[in-house]
Amino acid sequence: MSEQRPETNQPRENHDARDEAYDPSASSLTGTADPEVMAELLHIRSSIDNIDAALVYMLAERFRCTQRVGWLKARHQLPPSDPGRETAQIQRLHRLAEEAHLDPAFAEKFLNFVIDEVIRHHEAISETHAAGAGN
Amino acid sequence: MSEQRPETNQPRENHDARDEAYDPSASSLTGTADPEVMAELLHIRSSIDNIDAALVYMLAERFRCTQRVGWLKARHQLPPSDPGRETAQIQRLHRLAEEAHLDPAFAEKFLNFVIDEVIRHHEAISETHAAGAGN
Repeated sequence: MSEQRPETNQPRENHDARDEAYDPSASSLTGTADPEVMAELLHIRSSIDNIDAALVYMLAERFRCTQRVGWLKARHQLPPSDPGRETAQIQRLHRLAEEAHLDPAFAEKFLNFVIDEVIRHHEAISETHAAGAGN
Repeated sequence: MSEQRPETNQPRENHDARDEAYDPSASSLTGTADPEVMAELLHIRSSIDNIDAALVYMLAERFRCTQRVGWLKARHQLPPSDPGRETAQIQRLHRLAEEAHLDPAFAEKFLNFVIDEVIRHHEAISETHAAGAGN
């Protein structure tokens, strides 16, 4: 069986930019950097791309969980935010970040960034639930 | 050989608040919400805590990779940012987010949040490298 996949490897014309196949070697540095340096750069970027896919799927799963929390809170008229939980989460994340050699200040900024989005979701769920209750 | 580690399992006194053991049931809702609802909430939060640990370690590994990129760029006098790469990353992330049912706008905001931090790291590395070159 041939391993060649001529169809998918051909450059396509008249396509939408959003449908364009991902080019892992896309770079503004091509032609300006030494080919060996570019090869090393692309090697590391390939790991970054794998990690980004893991992060996207992990974040998606986290939002599935927080959506469940949102519905639960809306159903039982609980407030969208929970300061006691957030304080405990931030302390835990500091410790985890130190263990993982990640800047704890960045980890806290990251958690706040995610929590802001979660609270937006919970508020939207709460509004939907309130609107639904009138039916 | 005993598996007990009495030293580490003892509650400690006079400890720093930052050293305090994580309480997965910490919540400002305790006592105000129905115990069954609280139990369901804590069950979901346990999954969120696992995902957060995974995210912290994934982010730490991502920054290890981007630190390597930073040193490579500094050693070869390449610019800290790479707009061609960033455009390709954002397009790929949109597609990944759609597959994972994560809001693509949030995924893009998340990538920009991480890239801002990476560029700050690269600039710091570049300054360190420039300072070192004078020695």
